[in-house]
Amino acid sequence: MLIIHKYGGTSLADSTRIKEVAKRIKKESQKGDDLVIVVSAPSGMTNQLLEQASEICTTPSLREVDMMLTTGEQLSASLLSLALQDIGVDAISFNSFQINMKTTNTYGSAKLREIKSDRIFTEIAKKKVVVITGFQGINEHNDFTTLGRGGSDTTAVAIGVCLNADMVEIFTDVDGFHTADPRLVKNAIQVPYLSHSEALEMASLGAKIMHDRSVALAMKYGINLHVRNSYNDNKGTIIGEAKMEEIKLNGVAHSNKNALINIMGQNISSATIGKIFTRIKDLNINISNISKTQDADNYQQISMLLESDENIERFIKYKDEIIQNKDNEINAIEINQDVAKVSVVGFAVRTSGVFAQIWQELTSNNIDILMVSTSDLSISSVVKLADMEKAVQILHKKFFETANSI
Amino acid sequence: MLIIHKYGGTSLADSTRIKEVAKRIKKESQKGDDLVIVVSAPSGMTNQLLEQASEICTTPSLREVDMMLTTGEQLSASLLSLALQDIGVDAISFNSFQINMKTTNTYGSAKLREIKSDRIFTEIAKKKVVVITGFQGINEHNDFTTLGRGGSDTTAVAIGVCLNADMVEIFTDVDGFHTADPRLVKNAIQVPYLSHSEALEMASLGAKIMHDRSVALAMKYGINLHVRNSYNDNKGTIIGEAKMEEIKLNGVAHSNKNALINIMGQNISSATIGKIFTRIKDLNINISNISKTQDADNYQQISMLLESDENIERFIKYKDEIIQNKDNEINAIEINQDVAKVSVVGFAVRTSGVFAQIWQELTSNNIDILMVSTSDLSISSVVKLADMEKAVQILHKKFFETANSI
Repeated sequence: MLIIHKYGGTSLADSTRIKEVAKRIKKESQKGDDLVIVVSAPSGMTNQLLEQASEICTTPSLREVDMMLTTGEQLSASLLSLALQDIGVDAISFNSFQINMKTTNTYGSAKLREIKSDRIFTEIAKKKVVVITGFQGINEHNDFTTLGRGGSDTTAVAIGVCLNADMVEIFTDVDGFHTADPRLVKNAIQVPYLSHSEALEMASLGAKIMHDRSVALAMKYGINLHVRNSYNDNKGTIIGEAKMEEIKLNGVAHSNKNALINIMGQNISSATIGKIFTRIKDLNINISNISKTQDADNYQQISMLLESDENIERFIKYKDEIIQNKDNEINAIEINQDVAKVSVVGFAVRTSGVFAQIWQELTSNNIDILMVSTSDLSISSVVKLADMEKAVQILHKKFFETANSI
Repeated sequence: MLIIHKYGGTSLADSTRIKEVAKRIKKESQKGDDLVIVVSAPSGMTNQLLEQASEICTTPSLREVDMMLTTGEQLSASLLSLALQDIGVDAISFNSFQINMKTTNTYGSAKLREIKSDRIFTEIAKKKVVVITGFQGINEHNDFTTLGRGGSDTTAVAIGVCLNADMVEIFTDVDGFHTADPRLVKNAIQVPYLSHSEALEMASLGAKIMHDRSVALAMKYGINLHVRNSYNDNKGTIIGEAKMEEIKLNGVAHSNKNALINIMGQNISSATIGKIFTRIKDLNINISNISKTQDADNYQQISMLLESDENIERFIKYKDEIIQNKDNEINAIEINQDVAKVSVVGFAVRTSGVFAQIWQELTSNNIDILMVSTSDLSISSVVKLADMEKAVQILHKKFFETANSI
């Protein structure tokens, strides 16, 4: 079998950790599988480099920042190869140039396009463990690019696709996915299996185990993932094809980097609303939920949920623009950053009654539901940030810890 | 004009120094010249990386060590580009892949073969300052190599050759060449001009201003060098064509990483001596001087001077091999590491009387001359290490500080 391993920065933070990872790889390689390892930069190095760049330059060019940052994974890759060689495992490291890991041109957030696999296969045929730099690539100018958030996971999946690997194992510092964040819910149950779409829904709704981008790539190409803890031998979570007809709930996800925006006014015209949304799109602000209400007097309220600091920051700038525009029929814009999204995830949310139970559980515990959104695979409630932890615990108890659980 | 600058690790050690270098480059670029900058790794980084490698691996593979070390220059190149951009100088960094800086295959001590200059010229044409990683290249497998000692100076000269530059400026932490090391001789005079062969002689006899390898490359291709202090605007030393018929002395060089080897025996056969020298060659031990004496009783002594720790270390191992070999006619082998070589350099050494004066000065000051060697451009005396400083001072005084100086 051909297996891809991916190790994150904390697993490669210092010589001791690197040696531990090497030992694990040796154990796995002794099973007779061919192994390709994808590595992140040592934990802390990226921030340290960015700090030095900011000492040197007030608005660093993204090209040079990527040139600088890509040294991190190259360092990890060479050190891990050395650690493997030291314990008798023949290993060779490659950076993105050496395997022609081509990306789009955008520095800082490039997308992978193509990987040349011949050299990897040549070395695998020599029974070598191949160690590859994650998070990076080269664009059409032969300049280094970085892939942005979730970059190394994405590299691992892409390598898995290109090499037609049997499994991509993502080593992290937790035992895979749980029915809720174990730091919030002490009875959280480890989830042994998720379909790609369930994992994607969990990841995009806040489960920080894997970045949704890499799960989406694995889903697109039907690559099986195995999310495991690099500190132990627990089973972790396998992510693969959906099991036909299996109706269940997978977990409670939460995310706390949100802002709830309310735009209010009397008689806001469709044209004005249209202009606002066009501008929001042009400003690259992503809206995750949206709802609109109006009362008998035609007093309207448009509510939007924004996720991530970048979106919120961009909207805060845009707010002034709307307010200063005298032609608008907008009376007020509220930005509430003290909100969180708590989501129940799984195919079973489509069965009747789940939303009613969520509503009942939260409101009977004095938790206001500020906004609701649903998808085929999840029901998300926006609550006050102060209520988040309690809401996760209540919903986990209801759906995963009682006899009534689905 | 097209000018190459080379900055060493101490000039790029931290953000403050990098900004200083950027300011100097800006000033130079405002004169209207095209500039290409070659950089070393930040001072200290190479040792730090090697230390981590040795924590991880007892006998690190040279390929992976080079993969690791080349991150250093890439970091310097990107940070210097950022510093230049910050003060309004358009700059772009390249590593050895991006300009196809091809070398031989030997990791750790590769030799430059070819540099692809189109992309450099394209960026120069856009009026950008191009910053290039020194010390590194890629071999025929597309693997990173490093050039070993004097690597970044050599890169700078090679880039100068490939781009047909008007001048290669080597920025270091001293004001170029002096008639002696100013740390030993307070009256040492700064030398404004040296021919390539004079500079090569000074460098190979111990003046640590530049590595002799890069001077030899500049001589071969007739490239003018300018050795300058990166901390000030002093004139430094220009190294160029020999000035016809100019007969002078250039300075007193010294080196203290030497060992004097004496091999002694009665009736040593030519075959045995032949075997010893073949073995020395095979063991990659470089001999810098050699002399042989024998007395009326056919008691023979072969004396050799070794330079550099590597040569000495290899010879110490080889000593046991000779001694253990019962067939040898060798009685004893002495290895004396407490010796130094003090050299008077310049075309004028060929004029009669210079050696006589050296002999007179040293012996009348109770300094034993253990061995002498001469070339067209220098006369070197091997003395006790304890006498080195005094010998340099005496010879400098004689030839450069008195009315009798040549």
